[in-house]
Amino acid sequence: MRDLKRKDKLVEAAGDTYGKTLSLAVLDVCSDESVQQCINGIKDRHVDVLINNAGIGLVGPVESIPIEEMKKVFETNVFGVIRMIKEVMPDMKRRRGGHIIVVSSVMGLQGVVFNDVYAASKFAMEGFCESLAVQLLKFNVTLSLIEPGPVHTEFEAKMIQEVKQRECPGADADTVHYFKNVYLPSSIDIFEVLGQTPDDIARCTKKVIEASRPRFRNLTNPLYTPIVALKYADETGGLSVHAFYHMLFNMGTLMHVSMTAMKYLTCGCLRSRTISPN
Amino acid sequence: MRDLKRKDKLVEAAGDTYGKTLSLAVLDVCSDESVQQCINGIKDRHVDVLINNAGIGLVGPVESIPIEEMKKVFETNVFGVIRMIKEVMPDMKRRRGGHIIVVSSVMGLQGVVFNDVYAASKFAMEGFCESLAVQLLKFNVTLSLIEPGPVHTEFEAKMIQEVKQRECPGADADTVHYFKNVYLPSSIDIFEVLGQTPDDIARCTKKVIEASRPRFRNLTNPLYTPIVALKYADETGGLSVHAFYHMLFNMGTLMHVSMTAMKYLTCGCLRSRTISPN
Repeated sequence: MRDLKRKDKLVEAAGDTYGKTLSLAVLDVCSDESVQQCINGIKDRHVDVLINNAGIGLVGPVESIPIEEMKKVFETNVFGVIRMIKEVMPDMKRRRGGHIIVVSSVMGLQGVVFNDVYAASKFAMEGFCESLAVQLLKFNVTLSLIEPGPVHTEFEAKMIQEVKQRECPGADADTVHYFKNVYLPSSIDIFEVLGQTPDDIARCTKKVIEASRPRFRNLTNPLYTPIVALKYADETGGLSVHAFYHMLFNMGTLMHVSMTAMKYLTCGCLRSRTISPN
Repeated sequence: MRDLKRKDKLVEAAGDTYGKTLSLAVLDVCSDESVQQCINGIKDRHVDVLINNAGIGLVGPVESIPIEEMKKVFETNVFGVIRMIKEVMPDMKRRRGGHIIVVSSVMGLQGVVFNDVYAASKFAMEGFCESLAVQLLKFNVTLSLIEPGPVHTEFEAKMIQEVKQRECPGADADTVHYFKNVYLPSSIDIFEVLGQTPDDIARCTKKVIEASRPRFRNLTNPLYTPIVALKYADETGGLSVHAFYHMLFNMGTLMHVSMTAMKYLTCGCLRSRTISPN
């Protein structure tokens, strides 16, 4: 954890395992020193499974986001992961064993309007891992990507509240309108109907760790498979761009109605039935 | 250009157009100030077509590359492009017209071993543009990606020379061996047989600009289409990882022989026949 003072909830959830099979350590993936100290604190620096889960979000019109704020997202989501891999991988390669897991996102496979920078950071990790996985295979080290869709966390609720009040300096009135009154409501709908819990993602990750032959890519939510299929079906990229455009700008109301209907019809069953892979 | 003192070759190639339809200006995409000054120097700040072509490469084992060096690649390839788009896009949106072109790479679609960081930076731009294209469609602004494969430039020759002599501190002997004696020769083969010229890429870009309905994605080299198809054919990602692994580590010699044969049989025709799209 970045701050051990905030460990109480985790310790409570861990129950008897805390201090036995679970230890906590301080780690800030944005600091070379902290990463090194954390790994040095592990017996023989021996890590069997590294799960890169730290990540931050960013949403809004690019005009209103300073480059420095964008860089902070890359510092955690990209360089934080690379820093951890650089620290742990050489040992795994030497031992000819180990499993590196990177929590990416469906937004690492398909961009989403007003999520330009977040998508860029997750795409970056997909490209990095695609390149590295081939080399690591030679060293018997496994690399897996977990690609969740929307996940219900405290962070999400805070973000929606914050966005509603945001000023968006630098963005024109039309863009702010599309962001707040078109994108945001449809995003909330999607979260409510398709959102998974952090537990769902943990269960999926456990499956990937325990698999005899772990998959490279693992979408946690099979309802997102058609979105990726749409992209892969058309090499010009036009199909995806126009489909998302149409869905957002021309069918907003229809989508809201369908999403609401789905929510009530499924009473959450949809969500609980959607833990992937398999 | 970053440095106008180096304009001679360009001015010579431009011939009569220089000073008439072609002007040169200083631009460093890594500097907010330089970007602003460059665009302010254009009459009414009116840009019809913005081509983001500045980019730098990086190849080698991640263990041997400091995070700071990786960040430099992102500073040009990612934040340089975003800086230009932030400066030019608001005007295009206001005018309800304009065309933004981003020169990505086939490595923005498929990672390549030992090109982890470069691929990450190009993937990032693919994700950014996928997200932004949907919004820009609403403003009648077009966004297109150009995805070249290997291109013959002075930079490439220098890079190969430099890599042969490089020390790769931090990387183990096996990794350095795979990098220098397995990856590098196959990379040189691929450059020789499939490499396009900068002119090929310019011609492709011109086609995209002049198209009545420009495509979103534009691979300049159709010989790369099967590589992307391979990825899209298998959602688990295993097919690509294993195919590239097999090609590189088990069929190295066979690949070298085939590539050499292709080179002599085609006498470069392969290359000149490969300007896409259409």
